[in-house]
Amino acid sequence: MSAFHVYDTTLRDGAQQEGLNLSVADKLTIAGFLDDLGVGYIEGGWPGANPKDTEFFRRAAAGELRMQNAVLAAFGSTRRANAVAADDPQVRALIDARAPVVTIVAKSHIRHVHEALHTTADENLAMVQDTVETLVREGRRVFVDAEHFFDGYLADPAYAVDVIRAASEAGAEVVALCDTNGGMLPSQVSDVVAKVFDATDVGLGIHCHNDTGCAVANSVAAVQAGAMHVQGTVNGYGERTGNADLITVASNVQLKLGREVIDPDRLRNALHLSHAISEVTNIAPYGRQPYVGASAFAHKAGLHASALRVDPDLYQHIDPALVGNSMRTLVSDMAGRASIELKGKELGYDLTDRPELLARVVERVKGMEQDGWTFDAADASFELLLVEEVDGARPRYFETESWRCITDSFSEDSPALAEATVKLTAAGERQVATGEGNGPVNALDHALRKALSATYPDLAGFELIDFRVRILDATQGTDATTRVLIETTDGERIWSTIGVAPNMVHASWIALTDSFTYGLMKRGIEPQSAG
Amino acid sequence: MSAFHVYDTTLRDGAQQEGLNLSVADKLTIAGFLDDLGVGYIEGGWPGANPKDTEFFRRAAAGELRMQNAVLAAFGSTRRANAVAADDPQVRALIDARAPVVTIVAKSHIRHVHEALHTTADENLAMVQDTVETLVREGRRVFVDAEHFFDGYLADPAYAVDVIRAASEAGAEVVALCDTNGGMLPSQVSDVVAKVFDATDVGLGIHCHNDTGCAVANSVAAVQAGAMHVQGTVNGYGERTGNADLITVASNVQLKLGREVIDPDRLRNALHLSHAISEVTNIAPYGRQPYVGASAFAHKAGLHASALRVDPDLYQHIDPALVGNSMRTLVSDMAGRASIELKGKELGYDLTDRPELLARVVERVKGMEQDGWTFDAADASFELLLVEEVDGARPRYFETESWRCITDSFSEDSPALAEATVKLTAAGERQVATGEGNGPVNALDHALRKALSATYPDLAGFELIDFRVRILDATQGTDATTRVLIETTDGERIWSTIGVAPNMVHASWIALTDSFTYGLMKRGIEPQSAG
Repeated sequence: MSAFHVYDTTLRDGAQQEGLNLSVADKLTIAGFLDDLGVGYIEGGWPGANPKDTEFFRRAAAGELRMQNAVLAAFGSTRRANAVAADDPQVRALIDARAPVVTIVAKSHIRHVHEALHTTADENLAMVQDTVETLVREGRRVFVDAEHFFDGYLADPAYAVDVIRAASEAGAEVVALCDTNGGMLPSQVSDVVAKVFDATDVGLGIHCHNDTGCAVANSVAAVQAGAMHVQGTVNGYGERTGNADLITVASNVQLKLGREVIDPDRLRNALHLSHAISEVTNIAPYGRQPYVGASAFAHKAGLHASALRVDPDLYQHIDPALVGNSMRTLVSDMAGRASIELKGKELGYDLTDRPELLARVVERVKGMEQDGWTFDAADASFELLLVEEVDGARPRYFETESWRCITDSFSEDSPALAEATVKLTAAGERQVATGEGNGPVNALDHALRKALSATYPDLAGFELIDFRVRILDATQGTDATTRVLIETTDGERIWSTIGVAPNMVHASWIALTDSFTYGLMKRGIEPQSAG
Repeated sequence: MSAFHVYDTTLRDGAQQEGLNLSVADKLTIAGFLDDLGVGYIEGGWPGANPKDTEFFRRAAAGELRMQNAVLAAFGSTRRANAVAADDPQVRALIDARAPVVTIVAKSHIRHVHEALHTTADENLAMVQDTVETLVREGRRVFVDAEHFFDGYLADPAYAVDVIRAASEAGAEVVALCDTNGGMLPSQVSDVVAKVFDATDVGLGIHCHNDTGCAVANSVAAVQAGAMHVQGTVNGYGERTGNADLITVASNVQLKLGREVIDPDRLRNALHLSHAISEVTNIAPYGRQPYVGASAFAHKAGLHASALRVDPDLYQHIDPALVGNSMRTLVSDMAGRASIELKGKELGYDLTDRPELLARVVERVKGMEQDGWTFDAADASFELLLVEEVDGARPRYFETESWRCITDSFSEDSPALAEATVKLTAAGERQVATGEGNGPVNALDHALRKALSATYPDLAGFELIDFRVRILDATQGTDATTRVLIETTDGERIWSTIGVAPNMVHASWIALTDSFTYGLMKRGIEPQSAG
């Protein structure tokens, strides 16, 4: 019997998420990250059901996946009705996958047995028993996912429990109770798991979906009621509203209930691994994600900021370092001196003993905020502002003489094109460069790179990864002010800059040039004097 | 004593979210949407704490906010230590806000009383009592937010309850227990709320943050333990990981626990209102959001797809229509036939008996949505599309030959200017006109008016009142697609149009010309033939 553990299904159930498509190489990479995170089991996919998953298990068994902690599990189904498990090709494929654990899904809701499987209550029990016994005979450890268990239990508790007993008596080590449709609330999960815990001897697991926004709470409730196996996916990936977010569940169980499921040193890597997996899935991280979200420990309220200086624990539910996150202060119109001082410290500028400097920065930020600037999503622009106040000026990599951007359209049926020309001086040389693009920012970006590439070859590695436009005081219509936020990466770090101007092209230009300046400064590039 | 209700704090606590900045006009618009949703109370902000919120309450009281259901609440704090509430300028500002309800935040954690307020346990109780009494004397209904209540109760239950009693005895109608740091789990919330319910007589409320991923579950647990007032924000906006998502909580309480908090007819509008509010905040909707997320009823699993055809209820936790959502199977990007039919009816086009026409419109909308169009917030553009399908074409008031827009800047210290030239034919005459503006849309608007004013004098009365830009597929940086929404008025009606194109100036042009066409059509102006 295995001990209390976390069972990851990112590669199988998580991959059901809308817009998520993983190659075999992606799956191998993610499995490595999951092993680093310290989960107990990794469900790799459904061998036999699709060639990609069969290939994944083949390559894993061939040595392409070396795991230090986790045990690999293959997922599949009970045999077909009125057949023999040992002869069922799907069961055969599970054995051939050579994973130490096989997890099979079984119907436990009598209505699904009749209406989806089109078979009888008894035959379904026989299917569970035969399949588990066959896999155990082949030397596999067997886990069973009891599909629609909670809906099934509420409809016919005796039959739902019979399915668990059939699995257990046939040799299953764990039966995971699944809230397949995700409609449960914690009070129901608590109640049902506690009753099943009393009625059976097998190790119980929990598998939740987030359709009521309670996947995490339901998983924790099941653990409190006796479950020893918790399923989830990294970043809560999954069909519909997703599965239980594994890092949130594990953090709650470990840091709130005091039951260790992940080596604390590995949990300190949670933010990094969550983001690394996002890179592979190409689904942008969700800022508000508990524990590992970029905003999870970000404070904006001035009310809080002054107290945060006294003791961060007053306004934090855990020490963010436990999951590899850190506290951030957001500079905004709701904040004052305290949050700017904190933000400065965070960026490496100690303003504590420089009250005049601090006052000057606060004054300047307040004035700019009145014009529509906001630094809570533009750390890089804020740091440039700090540099100006601390050092007297920001590094000047070039002197702009003029720029122009033209969009024109000659027919209603073809897309309008943009063309930008910049004139500037860098390293003592006047440069005139023109760039084209499908939009003004794109065209300006191309022109600026062209003008600067000889002087600053590092720019070739810069990539714009996000771009947002917001119209302020929109009641003034097209006379309104425009705020542009740009996110850039050089492969090592990601930074955000802001531009505000009545003209959206001008605002983009400001954010763009701030981004270039910040990126070059952070890479330690010396400005080549302008003339 | 008020009945069981939902208390919305999107405009106050929700606005603490990173990257969210609302103008006074935004707040008035959102308040209207919240009223449409059917929440009981709307917390508008903190008058006196910042000029924007003071202005919001001034304009609301002056008649700019007409609510059918909701009651407006002003948020503030207890008076300062060792002062008199009636003389406290912050308390004065709350009274001057003229909202029927005032909600004040009070410390209920003894450590915060000492370390953040720097005062004594007794003085904190006096602050609560004096402030509540003063507000009640002024004819206000008073709610109290007991800050850090759960942490406070776990540290010193007697003092935490003393704070509630002080508020209650002074005349507070509701005391909301706040999990300010968001660190609680449902079992703790259940336990504490049940104990406080037994120990006090006042109506209890719940205010949760999502730091453990349990904000929704904690809110529901509190309701099950006796709370009659549930706080939340639309789309779960809020500081750090956000507040409890109001629509998810209300849907759970109403559809799972069977306690009505929102008129079911209004709940059917939840998806629409959630998305409309996203448009105002300019924060992209989260696809995996429970109930109203675009993926919330989207099925990908092949296993499910076949059974779904038998009976959708087998794989859905509720009927998605109850919250205005619909089931989607991800093989085909199914657009809502029913909602298009409904929308058509709303605009005066009965498509019920015209299945072929309806099918054509659905097909076209589906295709456009794949390119980034959305008609949720652009009724006028949708009506033009309907007119094209019903009548064969939209009225053509002019034929565009070409247009061009130039933004240029000749110095870093002065704003960039925009200049647009349009060439078109109206009433048989070729027109070439140039307009200037502080931004491209402004310049195009001016040029277009100049070219058309002689033929269509009505245009002089059109005014652009709102303008929004959103970047889609932002991970592609500046190569992304741009969506522009424009709101226009002619003094009688207000209409919204949309444009989508890779180039944001081009997208603006599309929305702008749609707006002119729609406005002239609705005023019954005959197109002057183009040639």
